[in-house]
Amino acid sequence: MAKSKFERLPGFRDFAPEELAGVLHIFDSWRTVSTRYGFSEYGGPPLELLELYVEKSGEEIVQQLYNFQDKGQRKIALRPEMTPSLARILAGRHRAMAKPIRWFSLPQLFRYERQQRGRLREHFQWNVDIVGEQGVGADVEVLAVALDGLRELGLRENHIVARVSDRKLMTEILLVLGVKPGNVSTVFTIIDKMERTKVNRSMDRLCAEAELDTEVAEKVLEICYEDQIEVLRQKFEGSISITERLDVLQIYIESLEAKGLGAYVQFDLKIVRGLAYYTGIVFEIFDRAGDLRAICGGGRYDRLLELVGGDPLPAVGFGMGDVVLGELLRIRKLFKPESAKVDLFLVIVGEEQRTLALSIAHNQRENGLTVLYGLHPETVGKQLEVASKVGACQVLMLAPDELERGLVVLKDMKTGEQREMRLEEFIT
Amino acid sequence: MAKSKFERLPGFRDFAPEELAGVLHIFDSWRTVSTRYGFSEYGGPPLELLELYVEKSGEEIVQQLYNFQDKGQRKIALRPEMTPSLARILAGRHRAMAKPIRWFSLPQLFRYERQQRGRLREHFQWNVDIVGEQGVGADVEVLAVALDGLRELGLRENHIVARVSDRKLMTEILLVLGVKPGNVSTVFTIIDKMERTKVNRSMDRLCAEAELDTEVAEKVLEICYEDQIEVLRQKFEGSISITERLDVLQIYIESLEAKGLGAYVQFDLKIVRGLAYYTGIVFEIFDRAGDLRAICGGGRYDRLLELVGGDPLPAVGFGMGDVVLGELLRIRKLFKPESAKVDLFLVIVGEEQRTLALSIAHNQRENGLTVLYGLHPETVGKQLEVASKVGACQVLMLAPDELERGLVVLKDMKTGEQREMRLEEFIT
Repeated sequence: MAKSKFERLPGFRDFAPEELAGVLHIFDSWRTVSTRYGFSEYGGPPLELLELYVEKSGEEIVQQLYNFQDKGQRKIALRPEMTPSLARILAGRHRAMAKPIRWFSLPQLFRYERQQRGRLREHFQWNVDIVGEQGVGADVEVLAVALDGLRELGLRENHIVARVSDRKLMTEILLVLGVKPGNVSTVFTIIDKMERTKVNRSMDRLCAEAELDTEVAEKVLEICYEDQIEVLRQKFEGSISITERLDVLQIYIESLEAKGLGAYVQFDLKIVRGLAYYTGIVFEIFDRAGDLRAICGGGRYDRLLELVGGDPLPAVGFGMGDVVLGELLRIRKLFKPESAKVDLFLVIVGEEQRTLALSIAHNQRENGLTVLYGLHPETVGKQLEVASKVGACQVLMLAPDELERGLVVLKDMKTGEQREMRLEEFIT
Repeated sequence: MAKSKFERLPGFRDFAPEELAGVLHIFDSWRTVSTRYGFSEYGGPPLELLELYVEKSGEEIVQQLYNFQDKGQRKIALRPEMTPSLARILAGRHRAMAKPIRWFSLPQLFRYERQQRGRLREHFQWNVDIVGEQGVGADVEVLAVALDGLRELGLRENHIVARVSDRKLMTEILLVLGVKPGNVSTVFTIIDKMERTKVNRSMDRLCAEAELDTEVAEKVLEICYEDQIEVLRQKFEGSISITERLDVLQIYIESLEAKGLGAYVQFDLKIVRGLAYYTGIVFEIFDRAGDLRAICGGGRYDRLLELVGGDPLPAVGFGMGDVVLGELLRIRKLFKPESAKVDLFLVIVGEEQRTLALSIAHNQRENGLTVLYGLHPETVGKQLEVASKVGACQVLMLAPDELERGLVVLKDMKTGEQREMRLEEFIT
């Protein structure tokens, strides 16, 4: 096969129409569901100042970014996530806006990751956020819209599950179990990786990195697997702050049940989210088979806007990428973008009819039909072959004999049925 | 106003929903019209190897690009145009594809230009190409789809004009007038800038840079303003190649007339297009008032695919940006994106009704409606205020007294009319 001497960059995708159709199908579902929930679409630049990301995630982030210096000596980066841009945009405008703000976006995001099987350096992400509402009602809406976005694509409770937890709850539990406040975030990092790590290894890390006694480390590991809110209530009934957070979590789960989404939701203390900026309820959505990485992750981040220099504003949101989701849809055979449809193909029997064909094509396109015709002289047989190849629904034959009588022949390509019709019907 | 300590990069746009709606409205029109013409949407990476652009446009292009070295030491650039990516993508696949290939794309493009009034460093562009068809029929389709994309947005022949010419014709004319073959492209560059330059200055440049005698330079300037094909036929009737190209151009213009687009098309030898890779018919679309830069430019480029290392393949296409077009739509008061619509707002009279509200919201969203409700407890008055502020069409009151009788109250926000309805109707 002939190839360009120029290669595509590794980790990037080209989208021929049959491939792009899949992405656009996902976009359509996301947009439809966002709209039903009253979210409005926004957008931002794919480039931002590097420090916008460093501020939020620390210097380590730089090694995972596409970053460079522009011709104006600015240190800039291709956006690895949308939330910092959202925070920056809102910092300048939110005061004039009614709360809560319900915004979504469909950005392409970039990371300079080491190349691995299926790991790309770009993906599209559905970002949904409610800003300015601290009640758990906002957390409920956000997980519900994520699940409905997936349901709109045909996924059901046997395909996907949202595992939900609460960082505040887990923090209180860890403190009660004997973890020092300064080590809580280290324990979170270890829990976040736990399922992909051997138990012994997690134990070792808890003892070494989070400075826990073996006994405390064991209790921490054990509590992570407790999935009954009632059991936790009894176990920690002396702690008011734990009881309060369990109440919130219970309202959260019961609200999702009231929406008919209970079968999709599972309480799971192992979910803590990797990123440090989450401050409350967090969730991740997985395929039930457990073959793939998380499809979606999100939660409450009440301090982010403050962090980029704005006013304090509560916020809750998620990001859902197109790549893992696309894999799941293919595995579940739910990946069925519509192929392009040609309504009408004009067959030009003699070149004297080309001018007429141009006029009919334009008229019918004005009526909203997809119309094609051959762009250079060809035999009728060849033209019919093309019409069939592009999957035209109907063919209109412009032949001199019929035209003399003011007629054209319309052929249904499915049934093969032909009928004569008056030419005027096609030029108005 | 509180602001983030981080600024947006100069030359980039944030899109709050009311701003993005304008871009999405333009995208919708472009997509609708592309589809009617049987074009399929494709996409490609926003980053490419720098040399893909250098190969086509020369080393000078680098100073206008966002280019950098990635962590794998690759010299890369943010795409300044889509055509090189198209050429690269097709080089690897076109042999297996039926011709002509009709593809379009809506990429965001980037240039590191000196900041000027209204000059951005990014814009969105509608790229449309027919590849694999050398007949003038393809040129006709391409200009027609561009014009229909603008007509779909409400622009008419009193707003816009497509100025069309032919590089082959102009080359032949210049040679007959006495321009040396080696100087033709220099003359093109000068003609391209002619309208933004004083006549004397153009004369001087033609004499100095293109090595023309004053007499020849005068003839060149004069012929640029000849807009009658018949006059050119007579003037150059001795040249077969000029006559042939005039024939092609005449078919081109007459075909557009047959499509009903004649009033949008104007023959104009001053149109030569800045970029060196055009090989035949070229066009630019302008606002009639002449206040803005070109809205769209395109033409035939039969050698580009070869240039990036692929097979020789004829091609014709255009690019139309969203920024100048957006300005024109605003000036002409045709800029009217629809605002978001809320079908139903649920008023929760007492918190005991919240669970029911969640269930109704989910049901009605499943039915495709946009539904909102307050995310935390609030007075009925406050909730009605919010419903009115978000422009809800209807309000559904969930009040204990009515619910006891299995009823809810539906209020039309336009007429103020209220009626009792059975609850069941809203939870199925």
